[in-house]
Amino acid sequence: MRKRVVALLLLLAAPVWAQDMPLPSWNDTGTKTAILAFVADVTDESADTFVPEADRIAVFDNDGTLWSEQPVYFQFLFALDRARALAAADPAWATTPVLKAAVAGDMKTIMTGGHAALLEIVEATHSGLAVDQFTAQVADWIATAKHPTTGLRYDQMTYQPMIELLDYLRANGFQTFIVSGGGVDFMRAFTEQAYGVPPQNVIGSLGKATYRVVDGVPQIIKDPGIAFIDDKEGKPIGIERAIGKRPILAAGNSDGDYQMLQWTTAGTGPRLGLLIHHTDAAREFAYDRPSAIGQLDRALDDAPGMGWLVVDMAKDWARVWTGD
Amino acid sequence: MRKRVVALLLLLAAPVWAQDMPLPSWNDTGTKTAILAFVADVTDESADTFVPEADRIAVFDNDGTLWSEQPVYFQFLFALDRARALAAADPAWATTPVLKAAVAGDMKTIMTGGHAALLEIVEATHSGLAVDQFTAQVADWIATAKHPTTGLRYDQMTYQPMIELLDYLRANGFQTFIVSGGGVDFMRAFTEQAYGVPPQNVIGSLGKATYRVVDGVPQIIKDPGIAFIDDKEGKPIGIERAIGKRPILAAGNSDGDYQMLQWTTAGTGPRLGLLIHHTDAAREFAYDRPSAIGQLDRALDDAPGMGWLVVDMAKDWARVWTGD
Repeated sequence: MRKRVVALLLLLAAPVWAQDMPLPSWNDTGTKTAILAFVADVTDESADTFVPEADRIAVFDNDGTLWSEQPVYFQFLFALDRARALAAADPAWATTPVLKAAVAGDMKTIMTGGHAALLEIVEATHSGLAVDQFTAQVADWIATAKHPTTGLRYDQMTYQPMIELLDYLRANGFQTFIVSGGGVDFMRAFTEQAYGVPPQNVIGSLGKATYRVVDGVPQIIKDPGIAFIDDKEGKPIGIERAIGKRPILAAGNSDGDYQMLQWTTAGTGPRLGLLIHHTDAAREFAYDRPSAIGQLDRALDDAPGMGWLVVDMAKDWARVWTGD
Repeated sequence: MRKRVVALLLLLAAPVWAQDMPLPSWNDTGTKTAILAFVADVTDESADTFVPEADRIAVFDNDGTLWSEQPVYFQFLFALDRARALAAADPAWATTPVLKAAVAGDMKTIMTGGHAALLEIVEATHSGLAVDQFTAQVADWIATAKHPTTGLRYDQMTYQPMIELLDYLRANGFQTFIVSGGGVDFMRAFTEQAYGVPPQNVIGSLGKATYRVVDGVPQIIKDPGIAFIDDKEGKPIGIERAIGKRPILAAGNSDGDYQMLQWTTAGTGPRLGLLIHHTDAAREFAYDRPSAIGQLDRALDDAPGMGWLVVDMAKDWARVWTGD
């Protein structure tokens, strides 16, 4: 009789208990334990590790940290789709070999042109229109476009464990920011819906822009040219400019996040640096040191000495994509 | 007997009633009525003027809108004090006629040099140190320095009616931002304490900066040179870059705020543009069209047509400075 009562109580209690379990898509490894311990430390008012809510700033890279970034950054795939749409509307649109390659999807020619070719394509497809028009284009693309190898929508290739981590941090009084080399206008089209991160908490690379009154209507027009690159040394600068406080938690996945993690974890008091290591060729992609996209080399070498937690996707994550 | 009971009840009730009265330092004029009506409109869930909290973005200029700006911007008075301190520590510090004039407080020579001279003094006093060192210097200055004519500390020359407005808006679900031509690192030293506006809600002009690891310690160093001027056409750009949403309320006091008010009030749905008109020579300063600091000319002409509310400091404000 007593056994049945206990069993019944357990059955009744189970759903509540499951709901309250933080980070359900993280396996019970040392990584999860360390994250939970860090949050417990900074939220325990009686401990000397306590951090007031105003200072619980957490910053996350986007590409390769919150969603996938293979075979190339998704923003670049958007640029290629835009190039095709622009050329369809105006056959004379592609005036250079690089833009013609973009329209044709000729990645070989594009990659031969290196950084300059990528920039030319992004500039040609991301300028000459108002910010709100651009954001609408991105939102439409996110809602419809499919990834070339998985067939998933791009917002289905966001990482379920990381979204749980963002939610968990906010539930514990953290303010969560995205700090990415991606374009800020591109990201803001989907970060609130995908990650619960509102536009004012998105820090990214900036294109040039002009404020103009066109036929009596004030507009902010995206111009060609780069105003700020939010990558490598640019990440701490971007954080300082936009937030004005040093974060206590930073998450990244590549050498482009090195300085952000270094700046964050060099502060006094409890700090957490997370480095997402793409180890899961079966469920996602496996790459690190020699990768052209999301290269992780120096940061992986220095992680142990810096006290950064390396997240092994294959071992630490029970689930990868939200759209799985 | 009944009269005494009523009188007693009134006495007991009065303090509660006074506490709940919004904007106590605003006189009961049409300006206050219009502000209260706007807030009532956007917070009334049953009205078609309702605006969700996430979109209740309010932006405020700082100099001349939240605190005084005469005889010159307070940040420039800080720069002069820093020049004196730097020259005291190193007599060889002032190497140019303009910097020598700054150390001597020779405003005539400085003003003859125009914009370039002001910039030279600001650059020389605001660079070559880490952001956190600079912020500490500003905080110390705010806590001790006195205004040349009033003898008040600068944070005592903040406007009580505007601080009440900021509080009132936040109590009604608004997010309040500062959008100023002033330097962002300068403002962040006092905006949270003075206005309840945390660092991440402060948008301002940006100096160049470098991320460097000095003797193993990561630092963000303020360099000479301007990266972004958050004034005139720069204000809508600064808002777009930092917030990514169009505000529904903007407050300014000069032609430098024209585009911010224009951009804000050109949006659809309920909008409020506020223009602080310095009309009170007795309690503060009176200036507008010909003023070198805080010139208000075109915006004053266009305010009626644009639907902007002109705040007449002498008539609309029962009290001016917090330190009165």
